[in-house]
Amino acid sequence: MIFIDACFKRSTPTAPVWLMRQAGRYLEEYRATRAKAKDFIDFCRRPELAAEATLQPIDILNVDAAILFSDILVVPLEMGMQLEFVEKHGPILHNPIRTQSDLDRLSDHSVDRLGYVYDAVKLVRAKLDQKKALIGFAGSPWTLATYMIEGGGSKNYAIIKKMVYSQSELLHKLLDRLSRAVGGYLLRQIEAGANAVQIFDSWGGALEKSAFFEFSWRYMLQIADRIKAEYPKIPIILFSKGAGCYLENVSGNFDVFGVDWNTPIERAKDILFDRYALQGNMEPARVYSKNAIEEGALEIARVMGKENGYIFNLGHGMQPDFSRQNAKYLVDLIHETFAR
Amino acid sequence: MIFIDACFKRSTPTAPVWLMRQAGRYLEEYRATRAKAKDFIDFCRRPELAAEATLQPIDILNVDAAILFSDILVVPLEMGMQLEFVEKHGPILHNPIRTQSDLDRLSDHSVDRLGYVYDAVKLVRAKLDQKKALIGFAGSPWTLATYMIEGGGSKNYAIIKKMVYSQSELLHKLLDRLSRAVGGYLLRQIEAGANAVQIFDSWGGALEKSAFFEFSWRYMLQIADRIKAEYPKIPIILFSKGAGCYLENVSGNFDVFGVDWNTPIERAKDILFDRYALQGNMEPARVYSKNAIEEGALEIARVMGKENGYIFNLGHGMQPDFSRQNAKYLVDLIHETFAR
Repeated sequence: MIFIDACFKRSTPTAPVWLMRQAGRYLEEYRATRAKAKDFIDFCRRPELAAEATLQPIDILNVDAAILFSDILVVPLEMGMQLEFVEKHGPILHNPIRTQSDLDRLSDHSVDRLGYVYDAVKLVRAKLDQKKALIGFAGSPWTLATYMIEGGGSKNYAIIKKMVYSQSELLHKLLDRLSRAVGGYLLRQIEAGANAVQIFDSWGGALEKSAFFEFSWRYMLQIADRIKAEYPKIPIILFSKGAGCYLENVSGNFDVFGVDWNTPIERAKDILFDRYALQGNMEPARVYSKNAIEEGALEIARVMGKENGYIFNLGHGMQPDFSRQNAKYLVDLIHETFAR
Repeated sequence: MIFIDACFKRSTPTAPVWLMRQAGRYLEEYRATRAKAKDFIDFCRRPELAAEATLQPIDILNVDAAILFSDILVVPLEMGMQLEFVEKHGPILHNPIRTQSDLDRLSDHSVDRLGYVYDAVKLVRAKLDQKKALIGFAGSPWTLATYMIEGGGSKNYAIIKKMVYSQSELLHKLLDRLSRAVGGYLLRQIEAGANAVQIFDSWGGALEKSAFFEFSWRYMLQIADRIKAEYPKIPIILFSKGAGCYLENVSGNFDVFGVDWNTPIERAKDILFDRYALQGNMEPARVYSKNAIEEGALEIARVMGKENGYIFNLGHGMQPDFSRQNAKYLVDLIHETFAR
């Protein structure tokens, strides 16, 4: 699998490519699969539908890795959060965590309740081309905590940040529980057949530097250590959105650093590439235009084109209004441009 | 004025302090002034009310500079945008700019229509202690354009980014017009008595590096050049939120670089302090807790404490749920900690 080889900086015939949120609404096939489910949570809970959505971009785009179709919020859901996805608004968690007693009500059995995800992993791995990797994933403890504490998405993270600076003990208790839940969840995905795992820290950049390492990065490394102890040959990708100014202090036992589009790839290369493989980081909005795709691809090729240990991706997820033709054009162009 | 001295890196008895959005809802006095106006736009348009709000934090917090109370969207408003501020939602612009003909309908006379702002500046300057500076301000062309094109606040900036990558000519035309309007607007604020000006580029960080310099920074510098040509002794502060990874390419004819909380102050110092004064950058959420204020102040003092050319500020604005006691505590603590 060229994706796995690149994660470990072994030489590959070209740069492997996958796209964050490659299984998504921009594909009519995805929308058709989605329509078979009662709602978004039902979609996540039905392994055959999740597997179908996971496999679609492999056939359509010829990407080198599948990423399991699911949502990071299934972990809080199975810990007992009352989760609802509201059309054109996003997730709402109706019983946000604000006190110790809220925390006490959370279940410790989410790992066992997430069987539908492991079933989806098995279904995908059984059908997926042996040359293609299947990436399992989870949200970072910090990112999950933002939803659980704020009660949904947030602009200023006022409630959780107040906790960071005036109730950090309670927050650490929640993050510790999430860290154990997420670690167990990823181990079970690996046991079910995932070839690599990525932790999505979508809101790590909501924290200033010192707080980022204390409340987010540290827990991601706890999870990475636990996985590495059991599965040293499974690559671990960490992706923290908005942490580009903090790279100088990044360290730990993982394999691939996911670079967001806000962080110049040269900067990530200078600071991290001697220790980690890099994944990323084309500005997603470039997918709107073939010219912009070409320009972005050439710029990244100038920096990473000759290196082993580079995985092409966007610097954030695919958007619903992106064109599949342009996405396909991008994948082919990268395979061609980075061919040795 | 110690604020002006610090902008030009002259020695001062302590670090001057002001807080972004220091005139805001966290003050009951502000809420009382606000209640006298019909709505938020009426508030901005009534010089005596704007002056009142501007002066409140001077008396209450003892900050070293007043920043004119207004909103960056008065410029689009007076260019003909149908602006509405919706409670608990934010601004909506009902006639967004999407085409050349939308652009053609914009007025070139906004600078003359903003007389109420210049009147507020005069009222404030007449009443303000001579030792305190009055800062005029405007939104950056890029940041104003995000509202005008998206039709309000945005999460992904999908519409304007599509324009960045596939209709850049139209976007540059808008940015050029905004640049002229904002430049004229700031010049008139200076003529009315503003002692310094700050350009707020709240959404500059929505752009990847190359696009940031092409679509945002370049227009801020155009405005700065125009002001410097007429008023070389008026300090210019540029504040781009989320551009911390781009500092290596920052240059131009301005005086103070505003550092956001996402950018480590040491990084800003290493890269920019030989050429610019620095302003910032305490994480605003630290204001929730006196301990967190102390810790944040000491950390900044460790880096900037002995330097001329440093202005204390938060790394973003004050929030409605902040406490005035803590804000006052912060201002006093900084004056004391940075005293030479």
